[in-house]
Amino acid sequence: MPFPPEATLAEVGEFALIGELTPLFGQGDQVLVGPGDDAAVLRIRQGHVVVSTDLVVEGRHFRKDWAGAADVGHRAAAQNLSDINAMGGRAHSLTIGLAAPGDLPARWALDFAAGFAAECDLVGASVVGGDLTGSDQVVIAVTVIGACAQSPVLRSGARPGDVLAIAGRQGWSAGGLAVLSRGFRSPRVLVEAYRRPEPPYAAGPQAAEAGATSMIDVSDGLLADAGHLAHDSGVAIDVWTSALEVPEPLHAVAAATGADPLSFVLGGGEDHSLLATFPGDATLPDGWASIGAVAEGEGVTVDGEAYDGETGWTHF
Amino acid sequence: MPFPPEATLAEVGEFALIGELTPLFGQGDQVLVGPGDDAAVLRIRQGHVVVSTDLVVEGRHFRKDWAGAADVGHRAAAQNLSDINAMGGRAHSLTIGLAAPGDLPARWALDFAAGFAAECDLVGASVVGGDLTGSDQVVIAVTVIGACAQSPVLRSGARPGDVLAIAGRQGWSAGGLAVLSRGFRSPRVLVEAYRRPEPPYAAGPQAAEAGATSMIDVSDGLLADAGHLAHDSGVAIDVWTSALEVPEPLHAVAAATGADPLSFVLGGGEDHSLLATFPGDATLPDGWASIGAVAEGEGVTVDGEAYDGETGWTHF
Repeated sequence: MPFPPEATLAEVGEFALIGELTPLFGQGDQVLVGPGDDAAVLRIRQGHVVVSTDLVVEGRHFRKDWAGAADVGHRAAAQNLSDINAMGGRAHSLTIGLAAPGDLPARWALDFAAGFAAECDLVGASVVGGDLTGSDQVVIAVTVIGACAQSPVLRSGARPGDVLAIAGRQGWSAGGLAVLSRGFRSPRVLVEAYRRPEPPYAAGPQAAEAGATSMIDVSDGLLADAGHLAHDSGVAIDVWTSALEVPEPLHAVAAATGADPLSFVLGGGEDHSLLATFPGDATLPDGWASIGAVAEGEGVTVDGEAYDGETGWTHF
Repeated sequence: MPFPPEATLAEVGEFALIGELTPLFGQGDQVLVGPGDDAAVLRIRQGHVVVSTDLVVEGRHFRKDWAGAADVGHRAAAQNLSDINAMGGRAHSLTIGLAAPGDLPARWALDFAAGFAAECDLVGASVVGGDLTGSDQVVIAVTVIGACAQSPVLRSGARPGDVLAIAGRQGWSAGGLAVLSRGFRSPRVLVEAYRRPEPPYAAGPQAAEAGATSMIDVSDGLLADAGHLAHDSGVAIDVWTSALEVPEPLHAVAAATGADPLSFVLGGGEDHSLLATFPGDATLPDGWASIGAVAEGEGVTVDGEAYDGETGWTHF
């Protein structure tokens, strides 16, 4: 590193920092021209191209005292890669925009980028371009491009008679957030789940191949996102609590905070689990578990009843 | 509009505002699934796919008292569309991330989106997805995807013996910014050029077809961006001031501010003109004018001499 470890972005300067950041991002076969020109150039093979974008804002989506820079990088990449997963696709290229105050340590940006790149490596995707600018607050903008081998799985294809199924951990991140927001650091496994979600990256393409009729990644909360499937498909969805796994560490957190442990599972987002519907006679792929049923009607119920607990959050 | 004109983002809420914004964006033939799912789905025809991303930050790239919301939308779209233009490509799809304080009038977001959509319409591109979240400061993140009919024109292909040429207005936006930053509103034509740049969208693909060896869009300043071409191509570039057009309104601004009118042309960015090099014997397409020459060596000179005026700016 050609600058001292405590140097700020303002001291290092835009071009020097970009010079340090760029080599952190390896380029896959699909990248003909990577960062450094007016635009990156990609080789897109046949198939459907899928694109998604997300913002991550300091103080709203992360706090520097709750998550290290590398954690924030992992999370920012994961939430975008998960959107491609939820289409049944595989991500291949991402862009990052980083707006940050001039007094941010350059080290933070480098650690963030390293975490981001490591998460992308899990699926073989490349960071092909970016932008770096000053701002009052750290704002990270990520766009991801992927491809689907078969037709993308939309939110709108659920049909009465389908089963509702989930893949991946659910409620862990919300439990970790509850712990951190009360000033604690344990159970450590939940805090780590908040800091570095582990989306089930293989599950999306497998669900698509197995004939999933609709799919979404759980980012607003299990019930809120089931609600998006129900709304977009014009169906009713019932979630069975007896089928939901409540991980042991959540019981401890619930006992300490006076919350219902199930509320973390039903209301929590940001584990980036996948929720999908399959025809009633389909064989679910490994890693998927039935947790409910699709019927005619509208809205989401829990064990046949309306649920009045916490189910997500708004951004303003 | 289902809310009062003075309503804020916080009052309207994320989902209601997205409901109002989405219909502003028409969807072209290349869009199979537009906004509203986990990801948009695009039909990509054969050819090279080009991708670029840019951030626009309030107080740094725009001020609400210097440009209306629709102007900011036009500018944010233009600077991204221009990056595709500079590859010799045509933009087809964009994503927008908008981070904004809860007390921002919802009207601002709608006007911004309308301006953005109108600029995209100029090239037939569609806004296929986005994200909306809270922040302390307005930060706009745009990613654009396009396609090149032939090989993309990179920054690295200039060769000794090539001519340097420009397409589009140059220095107008910088003149407008100088006027606004001194509290004035005229010459109006310069202020309007700052608020709504007019990139020469046809010029990029035309240059590619005519055999341009390198190309860049002028966003840092003419000499700074000529410097990027020189550096990336490993050549020297000389710019001829006698070939540069200094528009009449810039003389008035220069006289009022004590600046050299040429400094706006040489140092100004954000008109999103294109700078390209062509083989010495090439016929330049309409709209392109020779303004210099490429030789062995390195760096940029003006009329054969080093230039010590203002030539760009840093972001921190």
